[in-house]
Amino acid sequence: MLQTTAPKVPPQRDLRNFLEELYQGRHLQAFRAGQTIPLNPQDIWIVCRGVVQLSTLYPNGDEALLGLACSSMPFGLPLSLIYPYQAVALSDVDLMCLTLTEVQQSPDLSQEIFQHLTRRLRQAEAMLAMAGCRRVEERLRQLLLLLQMEIGQPTVEGTRLNVRLTHQHLASAIGTTRVTVTRLLGKLKEEGWLRLDKDRHIVLL
Amino acid sequence: MLQTTAPKVPPQRDLRNFLEELYQGRHLQAFRAGQTIPLNPQDIWIVCRGVVQLSTLYPNGDEALLGLACSSMPFGLPLSLIYPYQAVALSDVDLMCLTLTEVQQSPDLSQEIFQHLTRRLRQAEAMLAMAGCRRVEERLRQLLLLLQMEIGQPTVEGTRLNVRLTHQHLASAIGTTRVTVTRLLGKLKEEGWLRLDKDRHIVLL
Repeated sequence: MLQTTAPKVPPQRDLRNFLEELYQGRHLQAFRAGQTIPLNPQDIWIVCRGVVQLSTLYPNGDEALLGLACSSMPFGLPLSLIYPYQAVALSDVDLMCLTLTEVQQSPDLSQEIFQHLTRRLRQAEAMLAMAGCRRVEERLRQLLLLLQMEIGQPTVEGTRLNVRLTHQHLASAIGTTRVTVTRLLGKLKEEGWLRLDKDRHIVLL
Repeated sequence: MLQTTAPKVPPQRDLRNFLEELYQGRHLQAFRAGQTIPLNPQDIWIVCRGVVQLSTLYPNGDEALLGLACSSMPFGLPLSLIYPYQAVALSDVDLMCLTLTEVQQSPDLSQEIFQHLTRRLRQAEAMLAMAGCRRVEERLRQLLLLLQMEIGQPTVEGTRLNVRLTHQHLASAIGTTRVTVTRLLGKLKEEGWLRLDKDRHIVLL
């Protein structure tokens, strides 16, 4: 269902280099894993390194994953309609802050960010398609394939997910319990579909 | 949960006028309500009039709604990772076809499409947040609020949804049955939350 090869796009300049050229003297802001990223109505953050988890909270206290902003992806309140909306660094991250007005007034900047905004849309759609799968196991497989694409690092043994996601993270993303995720990951491990490496990162085989 | 007022964005030129200026002589393509829009790997469609439903099919035959492309919004295979992916005109529509390369090579075009791509991302995220609501009635209310924002037309009586969505469309969008949607719409009608007008369009009161 999820196409594991992304549609071909022409090679582009590296967004981080572009931003650093454009905004000489504007510093990257660093956040440690687990820190909440402040969100302001006009600010768009660009991820220069690391992964940021975007989520919302329901009145009953459940949390729903809305996206993972990976390298070069934009996120922030101007790009969302959701309230409450929260952004938490899943790994150590470096971010650059731009304003919506800056992006909208600069054709070059819009052009650079365009493809990374597309990546976010593709990811959100893939998560929607995943949410509609009736079987929890299928939702988990689809999520892992999506993560492979987004935060996978090819190694000799398989694709290692660059960020360590807890079973609770995975459970929120697919609308199930932590216990079910633990059981299903065990099953996928037995089937030889994945393994954990020494740092407890998932490696898809 | 869903913020019913979209974040403020500076007024921009009308995308349709912009496209017509830029692509003089390139005709809009018209499709009738119910027609399937052909999708090619390099083509991005821009909706100039009407609403297009984007969806996927699961192996069991269920259909999941992935988005509603409304006026000025872009859609097409370069913007998605999903297979199978289908686009069906929900109303009579006029579309303009661009290629991904054209968009990527033109800063002006990227800049114009940027805000409408943002609208699609916001919508997809709102649908994701909706999918995570445990109560079906809450999912339906959230969907109707989203539709109010996307295809609502203010009238003296309330906001009329510009496109007539069947109970099955609404059911696919929130992962429930047609029968449940019919029952819940009846309840919301009794509560004075909505009514149907003479053309059987939903009016949110």
